[in-house]
Amino acid sequence: MSFNTFGHMFRVSTWGESHGKALGCVVDGCPPGITFTKDEIQFYLDKRRPAQSKYTTQRREPDQVKILSGVLPEGDGLITTGAPVSMIIENIDQRSKDYSDIARKYRPGHADYVYDVKYGLHDYRGGGRSSARETAARVAAGALARRVIPRVVIRGAVIAIGPHEIDRNYWDWDEVDRNPFFSPDARTVKIFSDYLDDVRKKGSSAGAVIEVVAEHVPAGLGAPLYGKLDQDIVSGLMSINAVKGVEIGEGFSVAKLQGEENADEMRIDTDGSPIFLSNHAGGILGGISTGQLIVARFAIKPTSSILIKQRSIDADHREIDIATYGRHDPCVGIRAVPVGEAMIACTIADHFLRQRGQKGCA
Amino acid sequence: MSFNTFGHMFRVSTWGESHGKALGCVVDGCPPGITFTKDEIQFYLDKRRPAQSKYTTQRREPDQVKILSGVLPEGDGLITTGAPVSMIIENIDQRSKDYSDIARKYRPGHADYVYDVKYGLHDYRGGGRSSARETAARVAAGALARRVIPRVVIRGAVIAIGPHEIDRNYWDWDEVDRNPFFSPDARTVKIFSDYLDDVRKKGSSAGAVIEVVAEHVPAGLGAPLYGKLDQDIVSGLMSINAVKGVEIGEGFSVAKLQGEENADEMRIDTDGSPIFLSNHAGGILGGISTGQLIVARFAIKPTSSILIKQRSIDADHREIDIATYGRHDPCVGIRAVPVGEAMIACTIADHFLRQRGQKGCA
Amino acid sequence: MSFNTFGHMFRVSTWGESHGKALGCVVDGCPPGITFTKDEIQFYLDKRRPAQSKYTTQRREPDQVKILSGVLPEGDGLITTGAPVSMIIENIDQRSKDYSDIARKYRPGHADYVYDVKYGLHDYRGGGRSSARETAARVAAGALARRVIPRVVIRGAVIAIGPHEIDRNYWDWDEVDRNPFFSPDARTVKIFSDYLDDVRKKGSSAGAVIEVVAEHVPAGLGAPLYGKLDQDIVSGLMSINAVKGVEIGEGFSVAKLQGEENADEMRIDTDGSPIFLSNHAGGILGGISTGQLIVARFAIKPTSSILIKQRSIDADHREIDIATYGRHDPCVGIRAVPVGEAMIACTIADHFLRQRGQKGCA
Amino acid sequence: MSFNTFGHMFRVSTWGESHGKALGCVVDGCPPGITFTKDEIQFYLDKRRPAQSKYTTQRREPDQVKILSGVLPEGDGLITTGAPVSMIIENIDQRSKDYSDIARKYRPGHADYVYDVKYGLHDYRGGGRSSARETAARVAAGALARRVIPRVVIRGAVIAIGPHEIDRNYWDWDEVDRNPFFSPDARTVKIFSDYLDDVRKKGSSAGAVIEVVAEHVPAGLGAPLYGKLDQDIVSGLMSINAVKGVEIGEGFSVAKLQGEENADEMRIDTDGSPIFLSNHAGGILGGISTGQLIVARFAIKPTSSILIKQRSIDADHREIDIATYGRHDPCVGIRAVPVGEAMIACTIADHFLRQRGQKGCA
Repeated sequence: MSFNTFGHMFRVSTWGESHGKALGCVVDGCPPGITFTKDEIQFYLDKRRPAQSKYTTQRREPDQVKILSGVLPEGDGLITTGAPVSMIIENIDQRSKDYSDIARKYRPGHADYVYDVKYGLHDYRGGGRSSARETAARVAAGALARRVIPRVVIRGAVIAIGPHEIDRNYWDWDEVDRNPFFSPDARTVKIFSDYLDDVRKKGSSAGAVIEVVAEHVPAGLGAPLYGKLDQDIVSGLMSINAVKGVEIGEGFSVAKLQGEENADEMRIDTDGSPIFLSNHAGGILGGISTGQLIVARFAIKPTSSILIKQRSIDADHREIDIATYGRHDPCVGIRAVPVGEAMIACTIADHFLRQRGQKGCA
Repeated sequence: MSFNTFGHMFRVSTWGESHGKALGCVVDGCPPGITFTKDEIQFYLDKRRPAQSKYTTQRREPDQVKILSGVLPEGDGLITTGAPVSMIIENIDQRSKDYSDIARKYRPGHADYVYDVKYGLHDYRGGGRSSARETAARVAAGALARRVIPRVVIRGAVIAIGPHEIDRNYWDWDEVDRNPFFSPDARTVKIFSDYLDDVRKKGSSAGAVIEVVAEHVPAGLGAPLYGKLDQDIVSGLMSINAVKGVEIGEGFSVAKLQGEENADEMRIDTDGSPIFLSNHAGGILGGISTGQLIVARFAIKPTSSILIKQRSIDADHREIDIATYGRHDPCVGIRAVPVGEAMIACTIADHFLRQRGQKGCA
Repeated sequence: MSFNTFGHMFRVSTWGESHGKALGCVVDGCPPGITFTKDEIQFYLDKRRPAQSKYTTQRREPDQVKILSGVLPEGDGLITTGAPVSMIIENIDQRSKDYSDIARKYRPGHADYVYDVKYGLHDYRGGGRSSARETAARVAAGALARRVIPRVVIRGAVIAIGPHEIDRNYWDWDEVDRNPFFSPDARTVKIFSDYLDDVRKKGSSAGAVIEVVAEHVPAGLGAPLYGKLDQDIVSGLMSINAVKGVEIGEGFSVAKLQGEENADEMRIDTDGSPIFLSNHAGGILGGISTGQLIVARFAIKPTSSILIKQRSIDADHREIDIATYGRHDPCVGIRAVPVGEAMIACTIADHFLRQRGQKGCA
Repeated sequence: MSFNTFGHMFRVSTWGESHGKALGCVVDGCPPGITFTKDEIQFYLDKRRPAQSKYTTQRREPDQVKILSGVLPEGDGLITTGAPVSMIIENIDQRSKDYSDIARKYRPGHADYVYDVKYGLHDYRGGGRSSARETAARVAAGALARRVIPRVVIRGAVIAIGPHEIDRNYWDWDEVDRNPFFSPDARTVKIFSDYLDDVRKKGSSAGAVIEVVAEHVPAGLGAPLYGKLDQDIVSGLMSINAVKGVEIGEGFSVAKLQGEENADEMRIDTDGSPIFLSNHAGGILGGISTGQLIVARFAIKPTSSILIKQRSIDADHREIDIATYGRHDPCVGIRAVPVGEAMIACTIADHFLRQRGQKGCA
């Protein structure tokens, strides 16, 4: 049991707070002989890095990863030894003063109140453990996970911000890296930016929906019931701060379908291999990957730190009105894209090792 | 690591297949000194029991639970000793012949194909491990979990079948037990029955959405990130067969809200205790219970076993057309209500013990 | 976390008490496609079965195993499907009356007192969960584990009873099955029987030391520090009731050796493969198997249930004198031989799957 | 599952190698509100620190701990928040050149060979993960564990080096800190130093036996079978490098005792509380603490790095003769004393939280 670990064979433990000295992760169970470079890890961290546009927090963090254990030099890069890989990212720009006036005030939508009830105290410095900064550790672990399953391609995109949704007919993966919203639909860029400009101006924040797609996942990963691949994916996604809903394939829409509409029929492809004629299942049947695209979605609530004054109480149970100053993401869902990808990378890598353990090599 | 266990301190392992001799669960970590009766366990099993209306499978299973360990007699009932509680339910009415002709045929929407890819074989007798029968073991464990947290009331209801949704203005918990759909809205009973009659006549099946509400959950259960109460709830719900989406509180709708709309403001109640002025969070903030109602929803896909002929392949990779005869739930989502309740009962009981372990008694 | 589970990938949970209806185990994570027969399981259970000589308890238990899940018929036997294998053994000859007079009395050397302190109650019927009967479940699981690693041969023997030790120069594995003590040294049979006759006559009991040897264990199982193969072996052995010491290879004698005496030198064999010139390490170096014989030993205390009157207290904290009547093993260490073998079989099977998961197939 | 974690509720994961940049641990599940100072952690690290006498390695490491997360300032010290506590110790004096000539040579008694077989490579720099340096992380975690169970006093001592044993009649805890061997018997100091001087002169090394005693452990910690307190203690001790045997209370001697000699009789003390009249059990009965002193012993093999030339092979399977130069502990068992204490502190803290979780507060 752990409160801060996920995965079983590819096992990730994270630690660190928003305003501590550093944050990091320990990846245990990583196969030996995996080659990678620090730049590869950094590549994904840079995607998640704050202050790259006006639509994310203005906190300036270089988010440079250091790899402290579990590797040997190999060519220009590194090779895993099978020992735990400890990765660390220092906090540079924490400015604790931003938060000092609200140490005993419960910010609506934040966990301040429940932390106090649960632990008898809370780390008031920028959200403490619940800060979005923690997700940097996930992204570092996810970058390593990708190297464990090198054929699998995992990509995410924002498919809705506030009431505005992308149009799947205009989905273009290349577009995702071209705009500050990770949107796959170029036509939404102006819509999203107008909406977020408006939200920011009123001191408010916006929610979002993210979709992550995993390609070339081999069939046979997962388990029928309690080690379901979809279960571990939704668990991983729900472990991210501010997520309130998760779904696979058709997701909630499945309720409206009838049996013959929902089931993905099968045929034999021209090369003799089985194919599915549709993918309502989102690549997972009975908890086990089918070999199709795995499709997962998750909804992120609007950032709780807003400038609009709200009613709340403080630690002395006095009624207060509170607005949250400081540097915040107006839509924290945007930077959740690389985080969602990372969680799915870790989950698939974990199940790849679990399947290899139970069943042997294909 | 386990493929068939959930929970950490209140830890449930289930075993058994649709057409084996029996199924059951082992509950480890249950506190000692919990008093209960076999009838209490049976009460919840009876709610899930098949063949109670024409809208569920006609398989006749008495689903009588036997309690084999971990208890001593206490008055008219039993008391837990702290040792693992093993509960077993025999399969009576399995009729394996119903399935013999499809042993090597992959039923669309079923896990037959992925089982074969994963394990090299599959239990073709009625879905094997993936049968909805397995959920009886969850319900038995959940009934015991309720006794660990006796003040907590956990109730579920079907809120949509196919395209038809209940109207929350007419929600009546008492109505749930009066109709065969676990619907809280009396006005939907005829709508649901008409729809399902129609679906059954065409040999098809229907999806559903279930909502489960937990009342009187103490504030402070859960953890900020990887042991989030909402994460473990969605993981538990997603571990149920046929679930494709799960959400907490506002769920996916949260994406459309702005910060001030989503955050639940706080005030001091007339008795001096903190209160929230709304519950968009569904009773969980930052992974930790707030003391409000916990609200979770999950979507169940239409039963994959249908009489309508569909295209598929067999284990020899020949193309076939297949219809699935036998006895099936036309809407397996209906009987998922007590199952969803059970998963949430187990999850809350587990977190209650975890919190008591880490923090001590309140 | 679990109080009643061992192993990670080959994961065994046991349940049941001495005087309940039954006891059993659930093996989760067993690879699919393992063929075995119920007779194979029964073979090992019969080795552990009580009442086969006057040196073990006279309780008559047929110890017939039933396999309730996780298998399909295959030829004359069974094949695992990858789902959890539930095995159950009914208690037939429990005679609870034997114990009724001591329900509130704490038997010296027994766990009665600490159970009451810990749980607030204890199962007074024959030792409850702490009964040696529980080990039947381990033996059943171990028999299945052997099939997962079919090349590995695991054999145990009693090497000391009371002050009498076997002479390793006369070690004969065939002898082990010919005498009621599992002794490998024919010359000790009379010595052990004389000693135990004497012990029984005075109403006392004897301790024992057991050695288990595993042959053909592939090199490379285990892990350097916290998943050490030797650590998991001693943990498994120490999980058996009444064990007070465990050691690997030279064990405690290692303290007396100097570096060059203890290290096992290496050379290249005539067939070009590495060989060790000695085996002080007991087949495990740095937590990892070397490919040599794995040698483990454990000490079992004398049975605590004796006819000799001893000073104790009862649940009301009154001083009493107590002798324990009923049927008991005068030397419970004897029947611990198949149990120790089973624990080591499970541990090696588990690490075989773990290594396959992390590293892939050799 | 993890290869580098121990404990369940008080859960410690360690990482780092002998010659990497740093090593450390993450403690998850630590209760909130625990106050401590960095000096307290450092106090125990200083006990284990190398180069404090000629009887330990001459590697100069300050072993200064940094605490990176999970705490807030509190007075002059720190207070835990309930979030994971990450502690890190930098490697300062690693001199990798010492080892460069033996990168492909297998040192007898070391894990080099099995690492290569297992992982396909090994970290040749000073033993890599298997270095005794790793134990610094355990000591840091153990120091925090002690604060979780502040009434419990845990002390260890060397009771044998090579063939020389202490005399229990002269046991003096105060003496332990006065000599470089952690010996409780002042009369052995000269004997140990003469013996080790001799061993060092011939370029060899010595084994040792360590005893750890825990006082004021409340009765009721542990579990009857698989979560036995003694099992977790021996598992923790065996997880330390170079340990080959572990025992509790009478340990292996128990085999020679008869029932009435081994069982600890009970009486009521003058204050009305239960007392035991002896402690053969070493403070643990049926896996559960009795409230008496917990007594554990473990044997450490002689350091494998010796100057005496031995026969071995290299990674190309050529026969070689090898002596291991560099800086090594001539008796690594000496510095194992604070390490053994730490493992037992962590184990007891873990079981204290587990018991509080399952049973509630006493």
